[in-house]
Amino acid sequence: MSEDCIFCKIIKGEIPCKKVYEDNDVLAFLDINGLTQGHTLVIPKQHYVNIFDIPEEILTKIAKVAKKLSIIYKEKLPCSGVNLLNANESCAHQSVFHFHLHIIPRNENDGVDLDFPGQQRTPAELDAVLQKIKN
Amino acid sequence: MSEDCIFCKIIKGEIPCKKVYEDNDVLAFLDINGLTQGHTLVIPKQHYVNIFDIPEEILTKIAKVAKKLSIIYKEKLPCSGVNLLNANESCAHQSVFHFHLHIIPRNENDGVDLDFPGQQRTPAELDAVLQKIKN
Repeated sequence: MSEDCIFCKIIKGEIPCKKVYEDNDVLAFLDINGLTQGHTLVIPKQHYVNIFDIPEEILTKIAKVAKKLSIIYKEKLPCSGVNLLNANESCAHQSVFHFHLHIIPRNENDGVDLDFPGQQRTPAELDAVLQKIKN
Repeated sequence: MSEDCIFCKIIKGEIPCKKVYEDNDVLAFLDINGLTQGHTLVIPKQHYVNIFDIPEEILTKIAKVAKKLSIIYKEKLPCSGVNLLNANESCAHQSVFHFHLHIIPRNENDGVDLDFPGQQRTPAELDAVLQKIKN
């Protein structure tokens, strides 16, 4: 637990949440500032900052919960697809420093723009990246 | 394998790719239209459409590879954080219908805007969603 962490306070019950799933290791609840109806955060009960420090076995539990909830949302909500999104470090727009995976239920023309124009990369550019990674 | 699937063709070696990781079940390669340097796609070698049909055990393998690569990228690339992003169904901007998880290396002021303004949800709105999910 981290004293000033809002998600740790939610886990301890000091701040209320709208819970959609809970087990010994994982909690999922509705985002009160959701992008769409049903926008959910899946978090570990233990305090980990992000992908860089969360243990593999907890990350895989979170992935399984995200799959389960995605299937339920597609069936029960107005939801014909989902985005899963996870931000790590402030440069990536992480704002709460307790690991969280967003499940964003989606529908055609729901106004959420997650369709980014990429940039065509040359083979030389890609090789330069590979070189750095493989070093 | 799905005959017209571009990712299946990459797996079969019919289309080249810049490989960053491979095991029996998972392949990771650089996105040729990457948002940032090192933008990577992690995919299952078997053809699954998206989160709705990918088996749990393959999804968890992909999650583990994403964590491993994130750590390597933070160390080796110009990368101070990462976003993980996964799109399921066309309404969620899925364009290739073979499951893929994006790893997007991030840096301050890299021009990628993944910081969405949410919308404050009332308790009544959230309860209505919970009701639908729990039915």
